[in-house]
Amino acid sequence: MRDFLPVDVRRRQYVIDVVRRTYERYGFEPLETPALENIETLTGKYGEEGNKLIFKVLRRGEHESSGETDLALRYDLTVPLARVVAEHRAQLPKFFRRYQIQPVWRADRPARGRFREFYQCDVDAIGSTSPLVEVELCAAVTDVLRELGFADFTLRMNHRAVLSGLLHAAGIDASRHGDALVAIDKMDKIGRDGVVREFENRQIAAACAERLLDAFTAGGTNDATLARLRAAVTDDAGRAGVENLAAIVSLASPTSAGPAIRIDPSLARGLSYYTGAIMEIAVADLAGSLGGGGRYDGLIGMFSGEQIPACGFSLGLERILVVMAERAMFPASADAAGPDVLVTVFEDRDAARTAEARRQSLALATDLRKAGLRVELYPEADKLGKQFKYAAAREATFAAVLGGDEIARGEVTLKRLATGDQESVPRADVAARIRSAASR
Amino acid sequence: MRDFLPVDVRRRQYVIDVVRRTYERYGFEPLETPALENIETLTGKYGEEGNKLIFKVLRRGEHESSGETDLALRYDLTVPLARVVAEHRAQLPKFFRRYQIQPVWRADRPARGRFREFYQCDVDAIGSTSPLVEVELCAAVTDVLRELGFADFTLRMNHRAVLSGLLHAAGIDASRHGDALVAIDKMDKIGRDGVVREFENRQIAAACAERLLDAFTAGGTNDATLARLRAAVTDDAGRAGVENLAAIVSLASPTSAGPAIRIDPSLARGLSYYTGAIMEIAVADLAGSLGGGGRYDGLIGMFSGEQIPACGFSLGLERILVVMAERAMFPASADAAGPDVLVTVFEDRDAARTAEARRQSLALATDLRKAGLRVELYPEADKLGKQFKYAAAREATFAAVLGGDEIARGEVTLKRLATGDQESVPRADVAARIRSAASR
Repeated sequence: MRDFLPVDVRRRQYVIDVVRRTYERYGFEPLETPALENIETLTGKYGEEGNKLIFKVLRRGEHESSGETDLALRYDLTVPLARVVAEHRAQLPKFFRRYQIQPVWRADRPARGRFREFYQCDVDAIGSTSPLVEVELCAAVTDVLRELGFADFTLRMNHRAVLSGLLHAAGIDASRHGDALVAIDKMDKIGRDGVVREFENRQIAAACAERLLDAFTAGGTNDATLARLRAAVTDDAGRAGVENLAAIVSLASPTSAGPAIRIDPSLARGLSYYTGAIMEIAVADLAGSLGGGGRYDGLIGMFSGEQIPACGFSLGLERILVVMAERAMFPASADAAGPDVLVTVFEDRDAARTAEARRQSLALATDLRKAGLRVELYPEADKLGKQFKYAAAREATFAAVLGGDEIARGEVTLKRLATGDQESVPRADVAARIRSAASR
Repeated sequence: MRDFLPVDVRRRQYVIDVVRRTYERYGFEPLETPALENIETLTGKYGEEGNKLIFKVLRRGEHESSGETDLALRYDLTVPLARVVAEHRAQLPKFFRRYQIQPVWRADRPARGRFREFYQCDVDAIGSTSPLVEVELCAAVTDVLRELGFADFTLRMNHRAVLSGLLHAAGIDASRHGDALVAIDKMDKIGRDGVVREFENRQIAAACAERLLDAFTAGGTNDATLARLRAAVTDDAGRAGVENLAAIVSLASPTSAGPAIRIDPSLARGLSYYTGAIMEIAVADLAGSLGGGGRYDGLIGMFSGEQIPACGFSLGLERILVVMAERAMFPASADAAGPDVLVTVFEDRDAARTAEARRQSLALATDLRKAGLRVELYPEADKLGKQFKYAAAREATFAAVLGGDEIARGEVTLKRLATGDQESVPRADVAARIRSAASR
C-alpha cells in the first residue's frame, strides 16, 4: 500500500474529476458505501480465489481474543451496490444509475499497476434489460478515456450466452465449460497451440479446441463476426445473445462508443456473476485491460430475493494512472503544484517593528487569498535570500517582499522567480498583477 | 457505518470542495495515506482507551488461523502524517503544509453525529515553531467555516504549558495533573461544584480546585485573560506559553481568525501528544465541537528520531454536516440532483422504425452531453406518460420527445416538467434552449 504525496494526489484528482464530470453528464449519481461490510456479505461472491484475498477484521472488545472476524474490507464496488439496491430500494429511482469512486482492498501479491489498496471507478445502471443500457455505459466509458487523451483503445465485447453457445457447438459438455474457459483465457500467453494442449491436458478433445478457436478467430468487421456467430451458435439462448450483441452494436453507432466496440468471441471475463453482454477495454501495447464490465441480472436477487437486472462497467484508476504517466498524458494543470505567490516575512532588530512587519505580511496574504490566489506565507525569520530560494523550490510564481521601506511607501516588491525580475507594485494592485502574470 | 445515497454524497462533496479550495488558497497541499497501517504504527499513540477502539486486521493465508493481526485501520490522520514525514522527508518541502480528507475508523459506540467510519479534514504545517503557523491554521479553519455559512463560532485557545503552569500554581503536584484535567474536562457536564467534588474524590485538595477554577473563569477580552494568566502562572515554561498565546492573538488580528479567537484557560483537549497551543471550535447551542487541534512538536520524532515541530487542525466532517442539515445551511446547488433533461424513447409497431427512433434518441443525448448538459436516457419502451412521470420523479428540468413526427420535421418536443409547458424546438437549438432555461 502506498502513500500519495501531493503530486500523486493531484494527478489522481485530475482523473477522478474527469470521470465524475463525464458520468454526471450521463445522469449517473454518486454513491458511497462503507469500507467495512459484514463478512457474510462478501464471502461466496468472488469465487474460491477471491475469498482468500479478502481482508478480515477481528472482533472487538471481549471477543478480540477469540480470533473471530465479523467484518471485512470492501473487495469490489459491485457487491456493495447490489446490497445497497436490495436495502434501500424504496429510496432509489427505478432505473438507478450510479457511479462510485472508492478504494477496494485485496490481499494480492503486488505487481506493476497492481496494489493491495486500489481505486475502482464503477458505473452501473439498475432496473432495465434494454440494450440501451449497455450502449450508454460503453459511451460513457469511451468519453472518459477520450477526455483523458486515450485514442487507441478498443471496447472488446462478447456475451456469456454466446460463449456458452460456442462451447456447446464445439461439442464441449456444459460441465466442462469452466475448464475450457480457463484454457481459452490463456490464449494471449500460450498461443493457439498452447490452448489445444491445455484442452488435451484437461481431457477435452483437441478437435473441440480447433472448432472453438476457429469460431474465436477475430478479424473483420462486427457485421462479419456477427454473421459468423449466427452460423456457429445453434442453441436458443446463444442465438438470443448474438441478436443482443447485434442490437447493441447497431444502437451504439450514433454514440462515441460506436467506432470503439469490437465483437470478440474469445473474451471470457473471470467473474461468475455475469449473465449477458461482457466488455473489456484493450489498449494497444498494453497487456491486461484498463477496465471491464458486463450484465449481471442475478446478483441483486442474491440480496433482495427479487430479481433486478443490472449492468455495469469498472475502470481501474491505478492502471489508467500508470499508462498516463508512462505516456506523459497529464496536462500541465494537473501537475502545477506551486503557490501563486510566497509572501516573505521581514526581520528587524526592533521587536515591535518585526511584529508589525509580520502583521503586514499576514494582512497581504489575507487579501491575496480573498482574491482567490494560492498564497504561502514563509513562517521563519530567515534571511530574504533563503526565503527566495525556498519560494523557487516550492515552484511559486512570485515572491512578495514587504519590508520596512515597502510598508512606508504602501508598496510591495514582487519578484518573478522564473526570471528574477523585480518590480514595486502599489499594495492595492498586487492581486491583479499576480493574477495577470500567473499562467493558470 | 452508513451508505451514502446520492443526496448525501452531494452534500458531503459540497463541504469537501469548500474545505479543499480554502486550504489550497493557504498553500496547503493534498496528501493521502492508506486505510491500513502496520499495527505497531498505531498502538501506543492514542492512550489506553484509544487502543481498544482500533479495528485490527487478521493476517492472511497460512497465518489466518493463528488469529494474529498485523494491520489496523487508520484511527486518525495525524499519526499517519507523522509517519509520512519521517518516511518521505527528503521528498517533502521543509515547511510541509498538507491537508488530508479521508475516513478514519473507531470501534466506538455510535451516537448522534458519531459513527464508526467518519471523515476527518485535517490541515497541518510541519517544520516551524513560529506562531505564524498557529495563526494561519486558525485563519484557514475560520475561512472554511465562514464560507460554509457558520457565523456564530468561537476558536477557543489555550496552551499546554499554561495549563500545566496553572495546575502547578494551584498547588497540584505534576503527578496528579492528569487526574485533575480529567475532572476539569467534565466542567461542562457537572458544573463547578461537581469539579470540586471530583477533586475531593481524587484526593486533591478542594482548595486547589477553587484556586484553579478562579484562574479558569472565562469572560472579558483576550487582553484581560492574558493579564490574569500573567499574574497566575509563575513557572518559566508557563510564562513562555502565555507569551506564545499573546503573540498568536496579536498576529491574528489582521486575519479572519482575529475576531474568532478566545483565550480559554479551561480548554484541555484529550490527546496526550500536544505540546503547545491547543484549539477547539465551539458553536453556540451545540455541545461538543466541530473540530480542534494544536501543536505537537514531539510526535514526528517518535517515528524519525529527529525532532520536527508540527501544528495542525482537524475538522469533523460528520458533525459539520449534521449541524448544516439541522440549520438548513446547504445551498440549492448542493441539493440539485436531477438531470437537465430526460430523453424519452419512442416505440413504434414497426421494429425498424423503433430501432431508428432509439438511435435518434441516443444521437440527441450524445449531442446534449457534448454541450455539457446532464442527460438521462429512458431505457424502456414504456408509454410516454410513464416516461414523463419518471422524469418528474427524477426532478429533471425537461423531458425531450423524439417521435416519428419530430424526426420527420427535424425537431424535438421539449416539455418543461415544472409547468407542463411544451414547445417544438429545431433539433440544432435544443441544447441552447435547455441551457437558457436551466436554473443552474
